[in-house]
Amino acid sequence: MDRTFPSLLARMQELKDLQGVIGLATWDQETYMPAKADEARAHQLSTLQGIHHERLVDPRLGEVLAWAAEQPELGEDPRAMVRVLTHERDRAVRVPQALVKALAEAQSRALVAWRQARKEKRFALFQPALARILELRREQADAYGHDGERYDALLEGYEPGMRVARLTPVLTALRDALIPMVAAIAAAPRKVPELLAGRRFEAEAQWRFTLKLLEAMGFDLEAGRQDRSIHPFTGGTHPRDVRLTTRIDEANPLNALFSTIHEAGHGLYEQGFSEPHYRTPLAAAPSMGLHESQSRLWENVVGRSLAFWEHFHPALKEAFPQALAGVDVGGFHAAVNRVTPSFIRTEADEVTYNLHIVLRYEMELLLIHDELPLEDVPAAWNERMQRYLGVTPPDDVEGVLQDIHWAWGEFGYFPTYSLGNLYSASLYRAAERALPDLTDRIRRGELLPLTDWLRTHIHSQGFRLPAEELIRQVTGQGLTDVDFLQYLRGKYSALYGTSL
Amino acid sequence: MDRTFPSLLARMQELKDLQGVIGLATWDQETYMPAKADEARAHQLSTLQGIHHERLVDPRLGEVLAWAAEQPELGEDPRAMVRVLTHERDRAVRVPQALVKALAEAQSRALVAWRQARKEKRFALFQPALARILELRREQADAYGHDGERYDALLEGYEPGMRVARLTPVLTALRDALIPMVAAIAAAPRKVPELLAGRRFEAEAQWRFTLKLLEAMGFDLEAGRQDRSIHPFTGGTHPRDVRLTTRIDEANPLNALFSTIHEAGHGLYEQGFSEPHYRTPLAAAPSMGLHESQSRLWENVVGRSLAFWEHFHPALKEAFPQALAGVDVGGFHAAVNRVTPSFIRTEADEVTYNLHIVLRYEMELLLIHDELPLEDVPAAWNERMQRYLGVTPPDDVEGVLQDIHWAWGEFGYFPTYSLGNLYSASLYRAAERALPDLTDRIRRGELLPLTDWLRTHIHSQGFRLPAEELIRQVTGQGLTDVDFLQYLRGKYSALYGTSL
Repeated sequence: MDRTFPSLLARMQELKDLQGVIGLATWDQETYMPAKADEARAHQLSTLQGIHHERLVDPRLGEVLAWAAEQPELGEDPRAMVRVLTHERDRAVRVPQALVKALAEAQSRALVAWRQARKEKRFALFQPALARILELRREQADAYGHDGERYDALLEGYEPGMRVARLTPVLTALRDALIPMVAAIAAAPRKVPELLAGRRFEAEAQWRFTLKLLEAMGFDLEAGRQDRSIHPFTGGTHPRDVRLTTRIDEANPLNALFSTIHEAGHGLYEQGFSEPHYRTPLAAAPSMGLHESQSRLWENVVGRSLAFWEHFHPALKEAFPQALAGVDVGGFHAAVNRVTPSFIRTEADEVTYNLHIVLRYEMELLLIHDELPLEDVPAAWNERMQRYLGVTPPDDVEGVLQDIHWAWGEFGYFPTYSLGNLYSASLYRAAERALPDLTDRIRRGELLPLTDWLRTHIHSQGFRLPAEELIRQVTGQGLTDVDFLQYLRGKYSALYGTSL
Repeated sequence: MDRTFPSLLARMQELKDLQGVIGLATWDQETYMPAKADEARAHQLSTLQGIHHERLVDPRLGEVLAWAAEQPELGEDPRAMVRVLTHERDRAVRVPQALVKALAEAQSRALVAWRQARKEKRFALFQPALARILELRREQADAYGHDGERYDALLEGYEPGMRVARLTPVLTALRDALIPMVAAIAAAPRKVPELLAGRRFEAEAQWRFTLKLLEAMGFDLEAGRQDRSIHPFTGGTHPRDVRLTTRIDEANPLNALFSTIHEAGHGLYEQGFSEPHYRTPLAAAPSMGLHESQSRLWENVVGRSLAFWEHFHPALKEAFPQALAGVDVGGFHAAVNRVTPSFIRTEADEVTYNLHIVLRYEMELLLIHDELPLEDVPAAWNERMQRYLGVTPPDDVEGVLQDIHWAWGEFGYFPTYSLGNLYSASLYRAAERALPDLTDRIRRGELLPLTDWLRTHIHSQGFRLPAEELIRQVTGQGLTDVDFLQYLRGKYSALYGTSL
C-alpha cells in the first residue's frame, strides 16, 4: 500500500469525481432526460453508487486513512480531510451489504406504496411498507452505533455532531414560542390579503427576472446554470459546475422568485468552496442544516425583507406592468409574508413552518423509538396539527402522507430544515454586526457584500469544522432560537401591527 | 471466481453503464456544461475512463470470459457477447499502462500544437507533436499485434475485421472512378447555382422543422432528444436515451437540415438495438463504417433525393415563405447537390467527398509505414489535392491542418467515412429490392417503411456479426463500390445533364 498523502488525495479525488458524476446523472434525470430512459438511468446510478461504495469501503483506503491520522505534520486542511473521510468511511463500513440492499428494496417498495396510499388517501396502505423501513432503519442505527439514542445515529447522516439531547430542548422551546405567536397573528387586527391571485405572469418574463436575481446575488453563471424542473433543487458536479433549477407557474410568480433565491443560496455555498479544497472531502458543507441556513437566509431573511423589495419591486413591476398594476411595495412585501396556518409544509410561511418540522421531529422520535403504534400515526399527526396550528387535515394526503421523506427512508432529515432557519437568523445578525450598513446596501440592491461575507466566513470554510462549531466561531454562540424568534417578532409585529 | 453467465452479465452491464455515464458527461460538455467546469469535467471523465479500463482489464473478467467461451450451450447471443467483449478486452490488455499514459499526454500536447499551427498557418509547428503521436501509435499497433501490416491493428479499433489488403483495392478503384466523374461534372454544360446565399432563415423555424424531420424518420423523442451544439454529434447513455445535436445557422438552413437528418440516422441505429441486448456488448454497431452508413444513407441517399424534397419542400417553403420565395423543388434539390471541388472535407459534396478520404487514407498508410518524411507532408497533401480534385489549398489550414483527427491520434478512422458511403448505397439498393415502392413512399413523406426495414435488418442485429458479414447477409454481397458509383452516376447524370 502506498502510504503517502498524494496517494490518499488521489483516492479522495476519485470519490469526489464519482459523486460529481452521480450529481450530473441526477440533475439530468430531473431536467433533460427523456422519459423512457427511466430504467436505464436507475441502473446507471446504481452502478455508480455501487462503485463509490466499493471505493469508500476499500480496506486499503481504511489503512491509508489510519496511517494519515497519525501524521500531525500533514497540516490542518489535510488532517481535516482525513477526519471527514474517515468518519464517512466508518459509517459506510458498519452497515452490512445485506442491510444496504434490504433498505434499497424497502425504499423502492415504500415509494410505490406511498404513491398508492396517496391516490386512495389512505395511510393504511403505506403502513406495512413504513413498518419495514422503520425496522431496517433501527437496525441500521444500531449498526452505526450510538449511546442509547438510536435517532442520533440517523441524525448524524444529515447533521454530523448534532444530538437529540441538544436538539430537543431547542426545538421544544421554539415550538412553545411559536404556538402563541401564530395565534396572536391570527387574532391581529390587521389582515394581509392574498394579493396576487387571479393574475397572470408571463413565463419568459419570470425566467428573465430570476436571472437578474442570480446576477445580483453573485451566482456565477459561467460556473453554474439554472434550468427548470418540477421540484426545484440544487445539484451539479463541482464548485465550478453548480446547477440550480426553478419552477415557473404563470399563475403565481412567487414560486419562481423564491425558488430561485432559495436555490441560489445553496448554489452560492457550493460555488464558494475554497479552490484548494476542490475534489476533496472539504469541498462540502458540514451539515444539511448549515446548507439550508444559506438558502433560507437568502430566501426569507433577505428575499422576503422590505429592504430587498424596495430595490427589486420597481424592476418586478416593469417586468409585469399589467399583472402588478396597483400593487405597491408595501402590499407586495406583506403578500409574500402572509401568515396562515395550513396543512402543507412546503407551502407554509416562515412563522408556521417550524411547527410543521417540530411535529415531524416528535413523530420521528416516537417512530424510531417504537413508541407509537403505526395505526395511530395519522391520529397523532392530526392531533398535533390541531394543537400546534389549530387546523386538522381533511385527509391523509393533506396530513401524514404529504411528504416523500419517510418513503425514502429519510428519518433524521426534517430537523435540518429548522436548524437552517435558526442558523440563518443567527448568521444574518452576525453579518449585520460585521457590516453595519448591510440593510441599506440591500435596499440599494447591493447584495454582494453579504455574499462576500458569507463566502469568507461560511462557504470557503467547507467542512473544516462541524456545523455548530463553525456557527459558534462566526456568531459567537452555538445553536439558539433567540435570534430567529427575535427576527420573527420584529418583522411580524410590524407587518401585523401587533406586539408579538 | 463466480463462473456463471449471470455474473458475467453483471460485469457487462456495469461496463455498459459506465460507458453510458461517460456518454452523458461528454454530451453535457458539448451542450449545457458551464464554461468554467472544463477542468473539473476533464477530471471526471478521466476518472470514469480509468474505472472502465480497470474493470475491463480485470483478470477475473478475463477468466470468466475464457470459461464462457468454452460453453457452447450458452446460446447464440450470449456467445456473441462473449466474443465481442473478449475482443475488446484483449486489445485493452495488450497495451501497457505506460503507453496508454504516453498516448494521452502526446494527444493533449498535439491538440495544443495543432491549434497553434492553425493559428499561424504553419504545419511545421504541428510536426514534432505529430511525430510523437505516430511513434506511439506504431508502438501501439505492434502491441495490439498484426500480420506485418501495422495499419490493420489501428483500423481494427474503428472497423473490426477490415484489413488494408481488402480496403485498398476498393478505395483505389473508387478514386480512379471519381476523378474523371468530378472532371466531367465540372465540364458539364449545365451549372447548378448557389441558390440560398444571402437569404435569412429564422432559427426558431429551423428548429421546428428539424423536429418535424425527426418525427417523420421515426426518431423517438421520448427515448432521446435533440439539442444544439457547435459540432453536431450523436451521443447518449442507452438505446432509450439517445441524444442528437444539430447546428443552426440563420444564413444557411442546410446546416441544420442535413445535420439533423445525418445525426438522426445515427440515432435511429442507437434506438434500434434489440431490447434483450440492452446493457450488453451487443447493443453496439459492429463498426464505425456501418454506423456511418446509416447517417449517410439518410442524409445523402434519402435526404438529398428529389423524392424526399417533393414531399418536404412545400413544408419548408411554408416555414420560410420569404427566404424561399421563388425557389422551386427542382432548384432546391439541385442546390443541395451542387458538386464543387473544394479544400475542406466537411464541406464537400457526395461526389468529391470520398476523394478527400482516399487522400487521407493514402497519407495515413505512408505515415504509419514511416514512408513519408514529415516535412514533406503538406506538399504530398497538396499534390494529391491537385491530382484528385484539381485544386491546391492556399495554406495548411485549408490543407493538411484542417482535421482534428491526427491531433487526437485517430489514425484508421478516416476510411470509415468512405465505408459508410459505400455501405449506404448498397443498403439502399437492398431496401429498394425488398420494398419495391420505396421511392414512391418517400415521395409521399412516408419514411417509416425504410426505418423499419433498417431496424429489422441492421439496427436490431447489434454486434452479432462483423460489419461486412452483416452487409453480405443483408445485401447479398460484401464491400463494393459498384452500388455507390451507380447511385452517383444515375443521380448526377440527371442533375448535370451529362452522361457520367
